[in-house]
Amino acid sequence: MSSVERTSEPQLLSTGNARDLIDSVEAFLFDCDGVIWKGDKLVDGVVDTLEMLRSKGKKLVFVTNNSSKSRRQYAKKFYSLGISVSEDEIFSSSFAAAMFLKVNNFSPEKKVYVIGEAGIMEELQLAGFTGLGGPEDAKKTADLYLDCAIEHDKSVGAVVVGIDRHINYYKLQYATLCIRENPGCLFIATNRDAVGHFTESQETPGAGCMVAAVCGSSEKEPILVGKPSTFMMDFLLKKFEFGCSKMCMVGDRLDTDILFGQSTGCKTLLVFSGVTTQSNLEDPSNHIQPDYYTAKVSDLLEPSGS
Amino acid sequence: MSSVERTSEPQLLSTGNARDLIDSVEAFLFDCDGVIWKGDKLVDGVVDTLEMLRSKGKKLVFVTNNSSKSRRQYAKKFYSLGISVSEDEIFSSSFAAAMFLKVNNFSPEKKVYVIGEAGIMEELQLAGFTGLGGPEDAKKTADLYLDCAIEHDKSVGAVVVGIDRHINYYKLQYATLCIRENPGCLFIATNRDAVGHFTESQETPGAGCMVAAVCGSSEKEPILVGKPSTFMMDFLLKKFEFGCSKMCMVGDRLDTDILFGQSTGCKTLLVFSGVTTQSNLEDPSNHIQPDYYTAKVSDLLEPSGS
Repeated sequence: MSSVERTSEPQLLSTGNARDLIDSVEAFLFDCDGVIWKGDKLVDGVVDTLEMLRSKGKKLVFVTNNSSKSRRQYAKKFYSLGISVSEDEIFSSSFAAAMFLKVNNFSPEKKVYVIGEAGIMEELQLAGFTGLGGPEDAKKTADLYLDCAIEHDKSVGAVVVGIDRHINYYKLQYATLCIRENPGCLFIATNRDAVGHFTESQETPGAGCMVAAVCGSSEKEPILVGKPSTFMMDFLLKKFEFGCSKMCMVGDRLDTDILFGQSTGCKTLLVFSGVTTQSNLEDPSNHIQPDYYTAKVSDLLEPSGS
Repeated sequence: MSSVERTSEPQLLSTGNARDLIDSVEAFLFDCDGVIWKGDKLVDGVVDTLEMLRSKGKKLVFVTNNSSKSRRQYAKKFYSLGISVSEDEIFSSSFAAAMFLKVNNFSPEKKVYVIGEAGIMEELQLAGFTGLGGPEDAKKTADLYLDCAIEHDKSVGAVVVGIDRHINYYKLQYATLCIRENPGCLFIATNRDAVGHFTESQETPGAGCMVAAVCGSSEKEPILVGKPSTFMMDFLLKKFEFGCSKMCMVGDRLDTDILFGQSTGCKTLLVFSGVTTQSNLEDPSNHIQPDYYTAKVSDLLEPSGS
């Protein structure tokens, strides 16, 4: 759990404290799934809320653990939903994985094996790295008969695991071989969310499922680059002149969004438009308390408690 | 770790202590992969060793965590390798899963969703239960678009997870939905071995990989029925009149076979014909010490240290 646990009670967002919150921060960091949209449908009032914040000169950043898309693909999704967002306002865990390799001087001569979707492949390519696997291995099978072994590339120096709706035994075996047999091979997880949201109607296994599978077979633990890891915050801090106390993280998950915000020193706002309910927040087993909570982001315009 | 850790040093098997061991026990429990065979090839000297033990009136039991086959399929494999073994001498984790449901009075009117192979399906059927999934869902996909949800059977009362070389997102989602949404649904793991052995040439992801994946998405922990869980020992004790101290567990894995033997009070013999090497045994991080160790089971005939 967070080393920065709050002792004060979370406050329901109201007209008064919403104004104070907006006035006191320079940047709003938004989670996307369950906050901005659900599946392919915008949460009510999002467009007006983002416009209001921009009109007040606030920086907006979209921080998502969903690695299935690249930053370019996310910008396209925003555009298709009627919101203009530039690529450099988006921090996806697919981008974080590529940036982790970049800042750690991963050799472009080595390769990266991917359990994941197009988003990771594109971000790796944009960062100058060669990705193997991913969508290309979606149809591969590993029916094993006597003396039939999978040959893996010895130049793979990192395995990146994110959500993968085409997970299969071949990919699991390939990733495990690289991690176990290639000396110094990194094992990077985009995130460990138990569930993902691709449709409005149903939660489905998230990257936490694929990451756990590779932990199970490789008997190794990964380096985490998405929320709640603080890795992405380094980029945000370089981008802005102000510190974390001038930022507010807005999210629908306690164990990723709010924990990420708290452990980096941001203000935090929990919304109930995604996976967390008010009773989850109030449950005695929950030890992660946001500064503020409300039904949905548009309560920044007209808080429900006003 | 085991609650029954040995303080005495493990002994290398020699002519003298091999004779004492054979004389002092009534039954030998053998792991199969890495002890009796590797892939589809017998370990040297196995046939003669088993014949010698049978000629001395010893009971033989084959206890395997590999759930890909049923007891009937294992008997067939033994036969094809020139060893006559009856079905009731075999305790596979596929059988253990079905027996767990049986002894816990699982209603035959409820269904069982399976991530696993033919062995689990057959054992469930023989025990009078209806299995869903398994090989039948091998080709299913779960490409998710807006409002496209997987409908799961509300009468599924247990999910059994074993090794599955056709693991896919559909199965992971189906199993997770049953565990999360069907009230009281059991989550049973045949075993949690990191790797399995289907070929001589390569280790591949074991049931521990699939089980971890379902833990990752369901955020639940399973009931374990294979080694090192002591569940199978109840059956062996009912079968024999003598107690565990009259049994010797022979295996190639410290964390499953030897731990299983020790925690049930058996004598234990580690062989180096499978995954464990002498340096693994002697590594300071290893806290599981067998009573005896040797290169391979046929050293019971002519110990290497004699």
